[in-house]
Amino acid sequence: MAGNTFGTIFKLTTFGESHGPAIGGVIDGCPAGIQIDLEAIQGDLERRKPGQSAIVTQRKEPDTVVFYSGIFEGKTTGTPIGFVIHNTNQKSGDYSHIRDSYRPSHADYVYDKKYGIRDYRGGGRSSARETASRVVAGAVAKQFLQDVSIRAFVSQVGTMKLEQDYTQLDLTLSESNPVRCPDPDTAAKMEAYIKSVRKEGDTVGGVITCVIKNAAVGLGEPVFDKLHAELGRAMLSINAVKGFEYGSGFAGVAMKGSEHNDQFNSDGSTKTNYSGGIQGGISNGMDIYFNVAFKPVATIIQPYETIDKDGNTVQVQGKGRHDPCVVPRAVPIVEAMAALVVADYALLNRTIKI
Amino acid sequence: MAGNTFGTIFKLTTFGESHGPAIGGVIDGCPAGIQIDLEAIQGDLERRKPGQSAIVTQRKEPDTVVFYSGIFEGKTTGTPIGFVIHNTNQKSGDYSHIRDSYRPSHADYVYDKKYGIRDYRGGGRSSARETASRVVAGAVAKQFLQDVSIRAFVSQVGTMKLEQDYTQLDLTLSESNPVRCPDPDTAAKMEAYIKSVRKEGDTVGGVITCVIKNAAVGLGEPVFDKLHAELGRAMLSINAVKGFEYGSGFAGVAMKGSEHNDQFNSDGSTKTNYSGGIQGGISNGMDIYFNVAFKPVATIIQPYETIDKDGNTVQVQGKGRHDPCVVPRAVPIVEAMAALVVADYALLNRTIKI
Amino acid sequence: MAGNTFGTIFKLTTFGESHGPAIGGVIDGCPAGIQIDLEAIQGDLERRKPGQSAIVTQRKEPDTVVFYSGIFEGKTTGTPIGFVIHNTNQKSGDYSHIRDSYRPSHADYVYDKKYGIRDYRGGGRSSARETASRVVAGAVAKQFLQDVSIRAFVSQVGTMKLEQDYTQLDLTLSESNPVRCPDPDTAAKMEAYIKSVRKEGDTVGGVITCVIKNAAVGLGEPVFDKLHAELGRAMLSINAVKGFEYGSGFAGVAMKGSEHNDQFNSDGSTKTNYSGGIQGGISNGMDIYFNVAFKPVATIIQPYETIDKDGNTVQVQGKGRHDPCVVPRAVPIVEAMAALVVADYALLNRTIKI
Amino acid sequence: MAGNTFGTIFKLTTFGESHGPAIGGVIDGCPAGIQIDLEAIQGDLERRKPGQSAIVTQRKEPDTVVFYSGIFEGKTTGTPIGFVIHNTNQKSGDYSHIRDSYRPSHADYVYDKKYGIRDYRGGGRSSARETASRVVAGAVAKQFLQDVSIRAFVSQVGTMKLEQDYTQLDLTLSESNPVRCPDPDTAAKMEAYIKSVRKEGDTVGGVITCVIKNAAVGLGEPVFDKLHAELGRAMLSINAVKGFEYGSGFAGVAMKGSEHNDQFNSDGSTKTNYSGGIQGGISNGMDIYFNVAFKPVATIIQPYETIDKDGNTVQVQGKGRHDPCVVPRAVPIVEAMAALVVADYALLNRTIKI
Repeated sequence: MAGNTFGTIFKLTTFGESHGPAIGGVIDGCPAGIQIDLEAIQGDLERRKPGQSAIVTQRKEPDTVVFYSGIFEGKTTGTPIGFVIHNTNQKSGDYSHIRDSYRPSHADYVYDKKYGIRDYRGGGRSSARETASRVVAGAVAKQFLQDVSIRAFVSQVGTMKLEQDYTQLDLTLSESNPVRCPDPDTAAKMEAYIKSVRKEGDTVGGVITCVIKNAAVGLGEPVFDKLHAELGRAMLSINAVKGFEYGSGFAGVAMKGSEHNDQFNSDGSTKTNYSGGIQGGISNGMDIYFNVAFKPVATIIQPYETIDKDGNTVQVQGKGRHDPCVVPRAVPIVEAMAALVVADYALLNRTIKI
Repeated sequence: MAGNTFGTIFKLTTFGESHGPAIGGVIDGCPAGIQIDLEAIQGDLERRKPGQSAIVTQRKEPDTVVFYSGIFEGKTTGTPIGFVIHNTNQKSGDYSHIRDSYRPSHADYVYDKKYGIRDYRGGGRSSARETASRVVAGAVAKQFLQDVSIRAFVSQVGTMKLEQDYTQLDLTLSESNPVRCPDPDTAAKMEAYIKSVRKEGDTVGGVITCVIKNAAVGLGEPVFDKLHAELGRAMLSINAVKGFEYGSGFAGVAMKGSEHNDQFNSDGSTKTNYSGGIQGGISNGMDIYFNVAFKPVATIIQPYETIDKDGNTVQVQGKGRHDPCVVPRAVPIVEAMAALVVADYALLNRTIKI
Repeated sequence: MAGNTFGTIFKLTTFGESHGPAIGGVIDGCPAGIQIDLEAIQGDLERRKPGQSAIVTQRKEPDTVVFYSGIFEGKTTGTPIGFVIHNTNQKSGDYSHIRDSYRPSHADYVYDKKYGIRDYRGGGRSSARETASRVVAGAVAKQFLQDVSIRAFVSQVGTMKLEQDYTQLDLTLSESNPVRCPDPDTAAKMEAYIKSVRKEGDTVGGVITCVIKNAAVGLGEPVFDKLHAELGRAMLSINAVKGFEYGSGFAGVAMKGSEHNDQFNSDGSTKTNYSGGIQGGISNGMDIYFNVAFKPVATIIQPYETIDKDGNTVQVQGKGRHDPCVVPRAVPIVEAMAALVVADYALLNRTIKI
Repeated sequence: MAGNTFGTIFKLTTFGESHGPAIGGVIDGCPAGIQIDLEAIQGDLERRKPGQSAIVTQRKEPDTVVFYSGIFEGKTTGTPIGFVIHNTNQKSGDYSHIRDSYRPSHADYVYDKKYGIRDYRGGGRSSARETASRVVAGAVAKQFLQDVSIRAFVSQVGTMKLEQDYTQLDLTLSESNPVRCPDPDTAAKMEAYIKSVRKEGDTVGGVITCVIKNAAVGLGEPVFDKLHAELGRAMLSINAVKGFEYGSGFAGVAMKGSEHNDQFNSDGSTKTNYSGGIQGGISNGMDIYFNVAFKPVATIIQPYETIDKDGNTVQVQGKGRHDPCVVPRAVPIVEAMAALVVADYALLNRTIKI
């Protein structure tokens, strides 16, 4: 139970280190009969891929997924879908400087303490490279969820925030710029800011907002498996995530019940949506929306002081090709995890009535 | 898999509606040999209990737990611990006004849509009464975790925020006032504010901060079962919770990597703790701390308009004995869920090395 | 993960020791909308109950089930069904002779070694009394499976075997005699034999055959969760069970493929049914049938020699009120476990196609 | 939850169809620090491999396993171990005759009915080729279980049975002949018999006995997850298995309690071992032994009549390269599944006491 499986019915198990021969995964419980669009899957991988723009890491990794099973004559068969993405750009030499020392705010120290052994090359298992497997599985889940729209975008970089509510924005614009922010003006400012941060050899955090439209009413299993609890877990399992809020979120704390309560329309929809589409842990048919906070990437290109295995102080010159801000590439990861949750809960929801 | 079980090794399954004969649960996987202090368990229930002070619901429920199994001659035996709390104060008549209509921002509507049937009395399964079972199990988990300190407190009510960092406060003071805020001055202001909100028949939200000290290094299972992901899920599964953040949280977004990175001391501890005691999803031995946002309780004592099952508009006069602000009573619930997570992950961590 | 939960979707968690205040359980994942017949549930408990005839233990236990949740106005609500059976006949004094010694072929020794502590009264958790909770849950599962017939009966006691195939017997006759064997002549002989064994203060084993009719085509999840693998696990989890076989079973070993293969009729049914209604782990619509072997009960009313905790040899005079042969009372337990498996797999099967 | 994962802590997930590009799996929860002997793993694959002798299928498949993750500098790291075995000998043309018709006693019919789609080539997912992945994982588990000996052998082919008890045999001899029977005389007869069955184009069943020595006392989780229940499930999940018994098994039914009870020696060992090393579902330190019944392989090289998708009768000429008797190649599979269970339960057993 080492934690590499996600989901109850629609389940993803991933494997792989950043600098091993391959990463990959197994999707089990994917319903039979889905017509698979391989290009759409690869398309989501391209959105996550390094080197796609000037504001992300300049590593070159093609990230081509190969499917080994579970798809026959273009359709899912109900059997497990095994897939791999071969690692083609690993240069273990790049990481020799971290073999014997622990990078601050990375997983190096805790992996060593926990397991007594660590594949130190490029972060090994703790590398965000693992999330490519999630994007593959999420893209399959999206194809199962044909009627559901799952769209994430960047709503904050550093202190720069989108001022508009998502309902005031054309979310399709988020893919028109490298930041993945649906407001072109804000996107331009964010892009310039990320470039300036990169020049300093530094990094900065950000927020991704995700909106799910047309999810069925009734998704979510009380009491421990509330829909937002599973979405929260899904998001918090993504590298660098520090917080999750849905609907009114942390801001809702300051509201009164009389203004926060979402009054019903006669069709069961609500006049406001502070609930974020989820009440009592169950989707109510309104838009589901949530925010995910990402910390500034820990890998910086500045010299720093740290300790080695024996507790000695060592000086390290940060190097490598890293992201100054992780959120533009994390957008498809957030969508993928959201899709996995919704697919799983849609299947679970088939079992709750006679 | 209807979601009423929490945990992998140390597992809690709960049952019960607010107005049935009893609620209760089964703790499975609790290690054998724990000397059980029944008074401490009952003590945590008292902290959650209605009627304990002037700022919480005035319902009178003794909430006495009865254990049926798994404890023999004062010690846990390793077999499942079954327990019940009899419901003694249910007055179904109180709830006739909600049998046929849906309270805004409650679970009434979605339960009906999901299951086609609903125990409408007092919220039934969606009532926060269910959390009493969590408090029982969490109190048992705390007794397993003798060396770990888990302490939650109220850090915000409405817009009223504790200004000090938890490290600047004497957390033992939080139990000295009905709000459960460790700063007496702020606590007094919060108390007065909650009373004024109650007078309006309204409700207000709040934030609970939880600090876990002395957890072992190494808790947390990459990649999906990161320690903070499970803590987040645990907290988000509590009624009325809208957000979760740990360490630097949402505020960390605005920081640069160079300031956010926690530099090591030679013993592996860190000079700062923006990581919140968790790196790469694994505890690093520093304090684990996180915030949990609670919305304003949906039940208000003001007349409101809503719909019935057929979509007709109906006028309802809110009544009953409800909490103007849920956070004072939610403090032991947050602690309980944290204890369940830490106990479970401590046991999981025994299996990861030869 | 101490093993007290059975099932994936339709899940039963049980608790309770034979001599604690109560045993009971929680059924989670039971679909909403089942009209519950409480008498039928109690009826199955009566079939398992001690004291029901001259050939079973003469203990008197009313075994009355009390439901605490999950049923509202006569129907299941989809929320967890908590229930208890109070223990009314426990006499701890009866068991003082086994507090300090280990009964041969019981669980006393291994519980002590495993947990370091043991509720020695009447076998504690290892007592077959636990199976009463399974019978309750199985009876609920049967009511979900209205179109499926699940019928078990005794087919062997000691060396005395039913000679007829189940298809040649009127299975409704099995409840007409205390042995629960559908052939009255064989039943009479078995009854006489069990009585003679009892007079010797000894015990004898037996076989129960179970036949499931009208299960849907398609139940069973390849590859590890084959239908017969889960049925086997379910049966092997019952106290005293030593073996499980389905369809042609152990006898099928001696057959040739050309005779063992079940030829198809044009409607997909088969001319023979050596497959036992399951092919490739998936039900094919034919009768599912299997045999379960029970060892002779270990508790005998003869003096015996054993060891105490310190390894000293001690003489013990067996006493108490025990079953000379367990199979008559185990018939409803076998049915209950079969019903739990079929209910669970029927729900799982709803998730496998778009 | 489509059933392609086995285990709770030490978990194997497999994927792959017989005629896709590859099969493989992910081992999650394998403890860190195991020195991996790759040759031993490949060695177990060779024992399962087609073409290894004159009495098994003559297909040529190298079955070379490639590891993608979880092993670093020769040791397991605690991260998931992903592996694949490329399919090199698939000839889809071989199977065109079964695309439109259902082979009797195969999984063809039920897969089609269950999923509405089926990879018909060579049995697809239902092919026993999947078990190669189990052998890989089992071989890793064996390396974790250095002190435990797990040895399976053929004890029956058709009506030909080993007469000696396993304690009277030198089990190391089982690998000295192609049948894998430890008695050379019986092995020779079995071999001749299998050859004669092959000549007829027919198949025959068999029994494999497995003996586990030196397992720790205390493995097994009451009540549903008894050690023998999980072993039974593991074995019944292997293709073609029809029955499982442990210890005295079905023969124990005919015994009296007074003779079946295993009397203790002063060290806690027992004078007899009808219990098969397991009491109350928990290992007691004696040898664990059990029998697994395999039916005659359904694929025969004789003409047969069957139905197509539309229920029309069709004549089929069986062809392909198949096993006349499956048990010689199933010996390492039985061992592998036993190793997976013991490894998993050994890890679970670390969590049961303070």
